Amino acid sequence: MTKHVYDFLEGNGEMRDELGGKGANLAEMTKLGLPVPPGFTITTGTCMAYLNDNRLPERLKEEVDAAIKTLESKLNKTFGSQDNCLLVSVRSGSKFSMPGMMDTILNLGLNDQSVVGFAKLTGDEHFAYDCYRRLLQMFGDVVYSIPKQRFELKIKAMEESAGVLVDQFSIEQLKELIVEFKAVYQKEGKEFPQSAREQLDVAIEAVFRSWNNPRAFTYRNLQNIDHDLGTAVNIQAMVFGNSGENSGTGVVFSRNPSTGESGFFGEYLINAQGEDVVAGIRTPEKISTLEDAMPEVYQELSGLITTLENHYHDMQDIEFTIEHNKLYMLQTRNGKRTDKAAIRIAVEMVEEGLLTKEEALLKIQPSMIETLLHAVFSEAGLKDGEAFSKGLGASPGASIGRVCFDAVKAAELHQSGEPVVLMRNETSPEDIEGMIISEAIVTNHGGMTSHAAVVARGMGICCVTGCEQLAIDEEARTVTVNDVMIEEGTMISVDGTSGVIYLGELEKVLAEEDHNIKTLLTWADEVANLQVYGNAETARDLAVAMDFNAQGIGLARTEHMFFGKERIKEMRKVILAEQDDEKREALNKLLAYQKADFEEMYAISQDKPMVIRLLDPPLHEFLPTNINEIEEIAKELKMNASRLNKQIKGLHETNPMLGHRGCRLGITFPEIYEMQAQAIIESAITLRQKGIAIVPHIMIPLVSEQGEAAMIRPKLIAVIEEKLAAANIQFEYQIGTMIELPRACLTADKVAESVDFFSFGTNDLTQMTYGFSRDDAGKFLGHYLTDGIMAHDPFTQVDEDGVGVLMDMAVKKGRQTKPDLRIGVCGEVGGSPESISFFEKIGLDYVSCSPYRVPVARLAVAQSALNKTHIAQ
Amino acid sequence: MTKHVYDFLEGNGEMRDELGGKGANLAEMTKLGLPVPPGFTITTGTCMAYLNDNRLPERLKEEVDAAIKTLESKLNKTFGSQDNCLLVSVRSGSKFSMPGMMDTILNLGLNDQSVVGFAKLTGDEHFAYDCYRRLLQMFGDVVYSIPKQRFELKIKAMEESAGVLVDQFSIEQLKELIVEFKAVYQKEGKEFPQSAREQLDVAIEAVFRSWNNPRAFTYRNLQNIDHDLGTAVNIQAMVFGNSGENSGTGVVFSRNPSTGESGFFGEYLINAQGEDVVAGIRTPEKISTLEDAMPEVYQELSGLITTLENHYHDMQDIEFTIEHNKLYMLQTRNGKRTDKAAIRIAVEMVEEGLLTKEEALLKIQPSMIETLLHAVFSEAGLKDGEAFSKGLGASPGASIGRVCFDAVKAAELHQSGEPVVLMRNETSPEDIEGMIISEAIVTNHGGMTSHAAVVARGMGICCVTGCEQLAIDEEARTVTVNDVMIEEGTMISVDGTSGVIYLGELEKVLAEEDHNIKTLLTWADEVANLQVYGNAETARDLAVAMDFNAQGIGLARTEHMFFGKERIKEMRKVILAEQDDEKREALNKLLAYQKADFEEMYAISQDKPMVIRLLDPPLHEFLPTNINEIEEIAKELKMNASRLNKQIKGLHETNPMLGHRGCRLGITFPEIYEMQAQAIIESAITLRQKGIAIVPHIMIPLVSEQGEAAMIRPKLIAVIEEKLAAANIQFEYQIGTMIELPRACLTADKVAESVDFFSFGTNDLTQMTYGFSRDDAGKFLGHYLTDGIMAHDPFTQVDEDGVGVLMDMAVKKGRQTKPDLRIGVCGEVGGSPESISFFEKIGLDYVSCSPYRVPVARLAVAQSALNKTHIAQ
Repeated sequence: MTKHVYDFLEGNGEMRDELGGKGANLAEMTKLGLPVPPGFTITTGTCMAYLNDNRLPERLKEEVDAAIKTLESKLNKTFGSQDNCLLVSVRSGSKFSMPGMMDTILNLGLNDQSVVGFAKLTGDEHFAYDCYRRLLQMFGDVVYSIPKQRFELKIKAMEESAGVLVDQFSIEQLKELIVEFKAVYQKEGKEFPQSAREQLDVAIEAVFRSWNNPRAFTYRNLQNIDHDLGTAVNIQAMVFGNSGENSGTGVVFSRNPSTGESGFFGEYLINAQGEDVVAGIRTPEKISTLEDAMPEVYQELSGLITTLENHYHDMQDIEFTIEHNKLYMLQTRNGKRTDKAAIRIAVEMVEEGLLTKEEALLKIQPSMIETLLHAVFSEAGLKDGEAFSKGLGASPGASIGRVCFDAVKAAELHQSGEPVVLMRNETSPEDIEGMIISEAIVTNHGGMTSHAAVVARGMGICCVTGCEQLAIDEEARTVTVNDVMIEEGTMISVDGTSGVIYLGELEKVLAEEDHNIKTLLTWADEVANLQVYGNAETARDLAVAMDFNAQGIGLARTEHMFFGKERIKEMRKVILAEQDDEKREALNKLLAYQKADFEEMYAISQDKPMVIRLLDPPLHEFLPTNINEIEEIAKELKMNASRLNKQIKGLHETNPMLGHRGCRLGITFPEIYEMQAQAIIESAITLRQKGIAIVPHIMIPLVSEQGEAAMIRPKLIAVIEEKLAAANIQFEYQIGTMIELPRACLTADKVAESVDFFSFGTNDLTQMTYGFSRDDAGKFLGHYLTDGIMAHDPFTQVDEDGVGVLMDMAVKKGRQTKPDLRIGVCGEVGGSPESISFFEKIGLDYVSCSPYRVPVARLAVAQSALNKTHIAQ
Repeated sequence: MTKHVYDFLEGNGEMRDELGGKGANLAEMTKLGLPVPPGFTITTGTCMAYLNDNRLPERLKEEVDAAIKTLESKLNKTFGSQDNCLLVSVRSGSKFSMPGMMDTILNLGLNDQSVVGFAKLTGDEHFAYDCYRRLLQMFGDVVYSIPKQRFELKIKAMEESAGVLVDQFSIEQLKELIVEFKAVYQKEGKEFPQSAREQLDVAIEAVFRSWNNPRAFTYRNLQNIDHDLGTAVNIQAMVFGNSGENSGTGVVFSRNPSTGESGFFGEYLINAQGEDVVAGIRTPEKISTLEDAMPEVYQELSGLITTLENHYHDMQDIEFTIEHNKLYMLQTRNGKRTDKAAIRIAVEMVEEGLLTKEEALLKIQPSMIETLLHAVFSEAGLKDGEAFSKGLGASPGASIGRVCFDAVKAAELHQSGEPVVLMRNETSPEDIEGMIISEAIVTNHGGMTSHAAVVARGMGICCVTGCEQLAIDEEARTVTVNDVMIEEGTMISVDGTSGVIYLGELEKVLAEEDHNIKTLLTWADEVANLQVYGNAETARDLAVAMDFNAQGIGLARTEHMFFGKERIKEMRKVILAEQDDEKREALNKLLAYQKADFEEMYAISQDKPMVIRLLDPPLHEFLPTNINEIEEIAKELKMNASRLNKQIKGLHETNPMLGHRGCRLGITFPEIYEMQAQAIIESAITLRQKGIAIVPHIMIPLVSEQGEAAMIRPKLIAVIEEKLAAANIQFEYQIGTMIELPRACLTADKVAESVDFFSFGTNDLTQMTYGFSRDDAGKFLGHYLTDGIMAHDPFTQVDEDGVGVLMDMAVKKGRQTKPDLRIGVCGEVGGSPESISFFEKIGLDYVSCSPYRVPVARLAVAQSALNKTHIAQ
């Protein structure tokens, strides 16, 4: 037979499913012997039964009767008695905390008669009538949905005529107020039930119904809380903090929730009920002053706080009431805290022996670390700031600069020493130079994984994307949002976390070095199974990744090495020149550039592996589009400009993402990959000669067919072996491939025959698996997420059901051919904490992410390892 | 122990692997008791052993010795004897016929002494020395690779000085020629071996080596013949057709290889060897005249031909020699024939009881049928035609018309009654109206499955794509290839099979109705397991598909219904209008158009299923791009033109193929799909009311996620049920989905929950699996095919290793959820004969292809069924 009611003595802290969080905690505290006013909990299951059947379960009445009986006998009072009435509070409490979402009724059990008896009993008529008017107010609101305002207006009116505030009303005034409140009921066609038992029954139903009120429903949607959990109802004997000067109520945290500092933190009010603290009529006292005010109570409280923290192994948020010098604990729960505090608390609890390192690691959300590594605007700044527009917070940070609409203008202002914010409809690799020098990047189009977002995160530059309101007029050099227009050069502030763009300069707070994070990450590394690598485009990125203790570089892109102002000219010659010697000359220049780049990078990465990806972007990205550039290059190549223009048009692609890129370039322009291989091996030789044990890792992108790797690999090897022989040196090198097309996954057993390692490129893999591009999906992906067609953006969290199936298949097939094949992931989701345990599950060796995400990933891989162990146990 | 040598009496026709085609046939004829000069075959395995080890196997010499002994004893002659010498021919013969690729040596065994004996033996000194000089010539070429020319120059010189041709040289002149030939040997540092046995050994090695000569290697690559098969060597006693007027040689086909007509077809020469027939010095006689010339021989021959045809159940191509009135059979093989003849022969052989229907079906290549259904240029026309350019034969046919560079010009000329050829860099759906009225379509870019190619094949319009030489100047209205420029309006001829474009009008031959094809296809339908559906865009397509006996329509596209001149305006309003009523009004107009379209189509398809795909193309395809159109629509919608222009630019997509299309439109513009559902159900109701049992099949395109189908399906059902209720009628309807994205395959079990049928869209599936688009792959796919990176174009033949794995997975997962789920394929490869057996293997129910491919597919599915049965046995 289903049990609907649990006495606090019957439950425990594990029973959150049945009793809700509050009920379970009350039971747990009771079990621990803490001074909790007695009471009982009606289960969440009862709530769901009620909501489904539209009536309370039959046996509930009996069980409640029995529970009340127990309560009466414990307290020696009688529920509904005129002379010695038992009063109770009725509170909702679901499995997950839903602050402010549901309601509380205090003082339930009073009526026109018992209030008189209660006055006698407590010897305080004022107190008794005050309790009664509060009951009427809360009951009307919660049970009959009478707008709170109706009651408040009555209070206001009487305050005005009486010339005092409500807490100073005379007994007569309170009685008058009670009459007025009853009139409010009547006007709504309701009546306040005089029977205590009836009060309780309708209150229980009201709490159950509140589970489905719109506020609660919306909150659950936002927080991804299941709508089928239901709420429990906690019925507890009242204790009164408003029983005089030796009474009071307060809230205390076992540590500072803002900084994490140890020591109690909280406040209390003498002669008050909990709601008075919230209402803010009087200013509460700091908890430390309680030591002087009520030393014995303070001592007891402080012991209990420590007991609770030790019991829960977490910082506690506690509500207590003092009634005539007697302390009661009303609630305890794990306290909310800032990210900074969370980390400090976790680390210090380990030092105090309260937590193991493993427990501490599991208490921190990886995303907390990311926020802490970036500068933020001060709270004051944010409060005063004038918002201009809002997009997606694509790369965290708080940056200030002058708006520029293109890379040229950005460079110009930058050179004159001004900070700049690059604002574009969208960015492309040609904007790289402008992006590097910008404090922040803002784009009109694109999502969290657009080009701008990816590059910015890679470089730790603040970035806001998908700021769709921006109407950029590149000719007039202005940008307009609604009716606000600003000109190029205007100073703006960009919050890369919230995505808000402000006019003017907001005050900033710099992120300080946090030794607690360092400590935590050291512990993380100790338990991790997966290694964490960083992705890097430049020596600067690389240095950041190394600073953050990346175990290697999982993706060193070489694109930007072709996009520099001088370099792109040479690249264009390679593509467009008709004479072989012109091509060769251009390639030689590029070779020199690349060698220098790689030497610089190897000097930073030292003997940690660095996976260099051969050239990947679509051919057309290198080609000039404006006629001046075309004429210039035609001149250099001694070609006819209009003919060259035609040639360039001929290279136009309808879907560049699906076009002539990746290893397809390596097949049709083998000389480019051969040049890159030469640059890599020659720079490695240089460093080897200095005694640094470089092991070059060369990665072929966009393989869909073993034949591609099988054709390219020997050409690379030929170049490498030739250079090694010429330098009279031998060392290990590896040639691997990106696995970023569905077909590469499906045929990974064959692909593995021609390569030494795999690295998943989840961006392309996700694009192809779903058949939509990151750049173009913005127009419908938002729709999909809000309509619940998709649970999350597959570009920020791996799609386990689709993309993940292909990845799993590729790992299995690859290792079927080469059991020791080393496999990593270097796409955007490589650093996604939500994805990392999946990557561990399918057997990857490492994840690689943008440098600023390395610390986040280090924590996430540790958690994944710990969870795996837990599950395995 | 490996056996290297087989006497003709030991082998048989099944031993093509070991003995090669020629050797197996000689053995088979011998076994049948036909008059074959005795001989033996050295196996293909011996060849591979020789090529691998670079020397002949040890035991070979003994086995050859023994075989020669047998031959000597049979013929009572001695190999290498001076007085009574045995002469042999040495011929190569691999498993697959490689015409002209390898070499033959005749008269082997002669030397300076034995030629004297041979003269005495035959009583014909001239003949003997002629045989000897031929041996020297052939041996020098084959064994020592002495250029043939060296010998021919000597003959030429002597012919000039003698004043007669070689066959009239005197004995003295022949002897002189032999001396000259020996001088040629000497000059090359070679000597002609006088030992018959040595001649034979080096000849055998030479034949083996010829397997790897460049010609042979290239041919095998072209024909996809394995390089590891090796060639056999056939050594056979010589018979001499050049032994006088009662001797001769000839070639005869058992039926006419050009028309398929029954009755012998061939020619012969009196007093000649086979090579003389080829050399063309004398004109051969028709085979029928042999009946008068040598009645007995003719009668014997004709009996043998019938025997052979009956034995091989196929038309035979036979070589014979007559020596002193005695008939010898030297070779028989299945004769090459035209496609037309092949079909006639197969059908007539069934009627004659020589073949079963099943055997006949397996004898015809499906592609043969396609060629026969299209008009062709006459041979004379092709011979005289002046080629202008060449691309890919994308849709067969022979068409003539005036060049137009856009749809507007095409319409203009067409209205004035001129035939037109639409020539564009590439086509897009906006060109549809111009394409429909064109005789042929030619595009600069794109491959066999580009938009132009797909549409053209769908409509049976001749088409050449990827004609990369064309430099179209749209302003000057000219097109230039190399230095030849022609103007718009110039008459050209387009061969959609060869891909060649000719200047002017070539003579055409119309395809006639072929009752043999009809008969064959009727038999095909009897054995098929898979059904064949057609894809159709218009009522015209639909009618063609039905004429070709399609069992349904697997893909009725609705795009063109939105691209008509008036219609696209309304569609643009739906996308761009700001006012709901304008949108609604435009939708209502589109509804009326669509209803009329569907009624027309249902009237043709009748009760055969027709799968209508909801709107699919990227949004931007509907949007105007030139400013006039934008202004016009802005006016109609009372919008500001420059604002509208901005809005349109905002809808621009970087990769339209990966953008806002397919069911993504259905999610963001639900009203469009709802309108389509209404049009479909209302037109079906109209036809139902006329007593035609329409079962609407509605297909949702581009699903990547169950949620999409789950969101769209109930909306369609709501519209349908409302209309059915309003008409007070109930009938079955189905809602299915295209499976065309990798993720749909990977999650097919879930997708199946929300749909009634699947249809594979292999074009998109292939694009996404490989990560390249058909439109853009042209720049590298050719490279891939010629370099052997890919074995075939995955857009024309299904990629079993990649795309096929996904398809197989989708079928299994789909039927795991719904065991009876009906599944077809409607992408380009649906009609590919090479793909159909794979589709049968993975369990599809039907294939759907462009209407003109339906007959091809009908034959292919029959063959697939027959092969499956064979394999099963």
